[in-house]
Amino acid sequence: MATADFGVVGLAVMGRNLALNVESRGYTVAVYNRSSARTEDLVQTHSDKKFVPGYTVEEFVKSIKAPRRILLMVKAGAGTDAVIEELLPFLEKGDILIDGGNTFFEDTMRRSEKLAESGINFIGMGVSGGELGALQGPSMMPGGQREAYDLVEPILKEIAAKAPEDGKPTVAYIGPNGAGHYVKMVHNGIEYGDMQLIAESYDLLKRLLKLDKDALAGTFAEWNKGELDSYLIEITADILTRDDDLGSGKPMVDMILDRAGNKGTGKWSSQSALEVGAPQSLITESVYARYISAMKEDRVAASKVLAGPEFNFEGDVDATVEDIREALYFGKIMSYAQGFDQLRMASDHYDWDLQYGELAQLWRAGAIIRARFLQRITDAYNNEAGLHNLLLDPYFKDIAEKYQAAARRVIALATAAGVPVPSLSAAVAYFDSYRSEVLPANLIQAQRDYFGAHTYERTDKPAGEMYHYSWYEEA
Amino acid sequence: MATADFGVVGLAVMGRNLALNVESRGYTVAVYNRSSARTEDLVQTHSDKKFVPGYTVEEFVKSIKAPRRILLMVKAGAGTDAVIEELLPFLEKGDILIDGGNTFFEDTMRRSEKLAESGINFIGMGVSGGELGALQGPSMMPGGQREAYDLVEPILKEIAAKAPEDGKPTVAYIGPNGAGHYVKMVHNGIEYGDMQLIAESYDLLKRLLKLDKDALAGTFAEWNKGELDSYLIEITADILTRDDDLGSGKPMVDMILDRAGNKGTGKWSSQSALEVGAPQSLITESVYARYISAMKEDRVAASKVLAGPEFNFEGDVDATVEDIREALYFGKIMSYAQGFDQLRMASDHYDWDLQYGELAQLWRAGAIIRARFLQRITDAYNNEAGLHNLLLDPYFKDIAEKYQAAARRVIALATAAGVPVPSLSAAVAYFDSYRSEVLPANLIQAQRDYFGAHTYERTDKPAGEMYHYSWYEEA
Repeated sequence: MATADFGVVGLAVMGRNLALNVESRGYTVAVYNRSSARTEDLVQTHSDKKFVPGYTVEEFVKSIKAPRRILLMVKAGAGTDAVIEELLPFLEKGDILIDGGNTFFEDTMRRSEKLAESGINFIGMGVSGGELGALQGPSMMPGGQREAYDLVEPILKEIAAKAPEDGKPTVAYIGPNGAGHYVKMVHNGIEYGDMQLIAESYDLLKRLLKLDKDALAGTFAEWNKGELDSYLIEITADILTRDDDLGSGKPMVDMILDRAGNKGTGKWSSQSALEVGAPQSLITESVYARYISAMKEDRVAASKVLAGPEFNFEGDVDATVEDIREALYFGKIMSYAQGFDQLRMASDHYDWDLQYGELAQLWRAGAIIRARFLQRITDAYNNEAGLHNLLLDPYFKDIAEKYQAAARRVIALATAAGVPVPSLSAAVAYFDSYRSEVLPANLIQAQRDYFGAHTYERTDKPAGEMYHYSWYEEA
Repeated sequence: MATADFGVVGLAVMGRNLALNVESRGYTVAVYNRSSARTEDLVQTHSDKKFVPGYTVEEFVKSIKAPRRILLMVKAGAGTDAVIEELLPFLEKGDILIDGGNTFFEDTMRRSEKLAESGINFIGMGVSGGELGALQGPSMMPGGQREAYDLVEPILKEIAAKAPEDGKPTVAYIGPNGAGHYVKMVHNGIEYGDMQLIAESYDLLKRLLKLDKDALAGTFAEWNKGELDSYLIEITADILTRDDDLGSGKPMVDMILDRAGNKGTGKWSSQSALEVGAPQSLITESVYARYISAMKEDRVAASKVLAGPEFNFEGDVDATVEDIREALYFGKIMSYAQGFDQLRMASDHYDWDLQYGELAQLWRAGAIIRARFLQRITDAYNNEAGLHNLLLDPYFKDIAEKYQAAARRVIALATAAGVPVPSLSAAVAYFDSYRSEVLPANLIQAQRDYFGAHTYERTDKPAGEMYHYSWYEEA
């Protein structure tokens, strides 16, 4: 009766495409969806393929060979708990559930612990690559029991994307319990940062330098040939070539409302950075930029009330385009430095032993943030396993030092012109803070000691020795 | 047997000073501390005062007249739950517990709900003002059952600070369940922002303009006479006059290590802003600035590796000092605009019906962020109850428009010089984003639709109508 090698629950576009991907590697795949219409549609559309439809949970589970490997692709949240609840009565010790949704890592930690009580293995797996990636090869970040991962690894390696540099599949064991979903969350946060930096650059090219449609598309296409070579720059160039599909005759991008949505992973990434003590300002500014974009009515009203500066650009357009390119790469480096710093602090906090260089390897293909420069990150950690911050690696140090002048000029220009560059500004502030031997936090500690007797350390005494000044006893 | 009008649990410095404050208004105060030494010390040191010591929880509770009004001043977190657990068996329906700790508002919501099942009223009350404020008059933000608040109000009004403008006590009913602790949390977030803006200004005056000790102290003292008049500016000026109390002969502030601590309220404030969708970038940058300050060893190492720009200040010192003053006030206005926007969004989210103008009134005395300009916030909401953002009020609009030029010059200068100004940068980016009719979020929506089929709205169609472009079907 059990004939299937693998099971998939949830046949919306991501689940369906992953099922097709697994099946295409020679596996028999059991499929189940709460409403049977999607199951029927999949097996009828692909009647030549080795799908085993399940129309009840019991039928579905029993059609899979033990130890069962079952991928859940359902809406993250209460839906995941409900599906697990339904499956549980039919599962056996040693079975493996894989949650491939965009799940909050603390939920994964909770579920992992709960299921372990019944002897069920649980893998929380981040999946990046969108619909097309799911079908053709995503980047995957699985966390959970190592021995359970080993039983799933052969299939994951087959369906994963392959890095163009060396053909290696973009999947590897991340760490225990919530580590996989955590890494995916930070990946998404980095994606927010990349997108916001691109948006700020586009805004400057368009609002300030007044580049037309062809020049805009051409600039990003040109940038994609160099060190910025990445999926997000590539699709930006493509997007900017498109005309309105409803026939207004205008560029497509000009017809799209400037109100950005989000599904919460960027928010979680920032909330967790705040929790573990990681200064992850660039991604957070990117999340806030989406929030301000969502306040469209407020902005339209405010734009009629609040006057900005008078400004006419009179500089050299080509030189400024190059400044913006360098500023974008500078910002990207700060964003990844912050993101990897957050991963390091979370790894310590949750005891995950993350392998930073390997994570960058997994994002080289399939992932939305795939980019040529990720290899540089792997190289940096290969050169020095205990690297504390990417900025201390020679390659990133050199780029940061070389491009900082352009980044500073772009901020001065944008700020004078009244064009907001929140993420680029955060990048430069981070760079200047991180390389400051002395920051003005001594004054903050003095204030805290003054009004709250919070005490302070002294520059001439061992760290950890706390002092208090009698502020109220002297003149 | 029951002779006390009021009870205080927890006699560390805040609890002790609040107990002294209540007693000084003519009330008999029952006092209890887990270890009896503090109780003994208080009643022995003040044997002339109307304190009723409790050495068991039962004795303590029974010494208070019903309905009992009991203030908890214990370490926020598990300690609060433990104390409530101990008190509960001896409490009666209608008794009122007041948690005056820096408690996370969601904990207050949980405790409020739980205690209501036993008929016990629960007031979560933010208290600002530090040790001295607790003794002489704090600012208090109580949230909970309205009818319970009414029974406590007379005492709270007596012990509160009185606003210099009109003598009104700085306490009022904030709203149900967690509203009081939420407002205190945002107050603390705003405090982080104020302190960081002051620290950035100090850094520029010292690092860039090379002002000496007297000039630094004198500048802040001078600023405190004008529109920046506030407690934090006042104590900054005082701090900068002080010499090392260990006799190095150097200014005290130079002997304090630049590693700032935090007790979590700024972090919570930012995490909640992310949760309710409020773009609260300035406070968040202030929290991150403390995190980077805490990475002292990393920064010392990085300072030897990462080169910044070569820069010599050759401008007009006096004019630049005035620019920095205007930039500081500009930043402060943006911070409060963001903070009140967060309060508005949280009030909607949790259904609290916060009275924004009244909140600013409560902070005019006692609170760490007390400042002359708070009256302007009250005036703004009095002029327009439904005001959506402080920047749309004529006073704040005028100041923002007038001082933006200085803020922009300071950012250009600091950025060129390599002195980090994360919070001031966030302020200007927020101002420019908020007053932008069109932001580049259209490109972000195009990217999201491209890789994830997330759909978008169109500029020429009703909001809420979602569209998708067939990115993969055309050239």
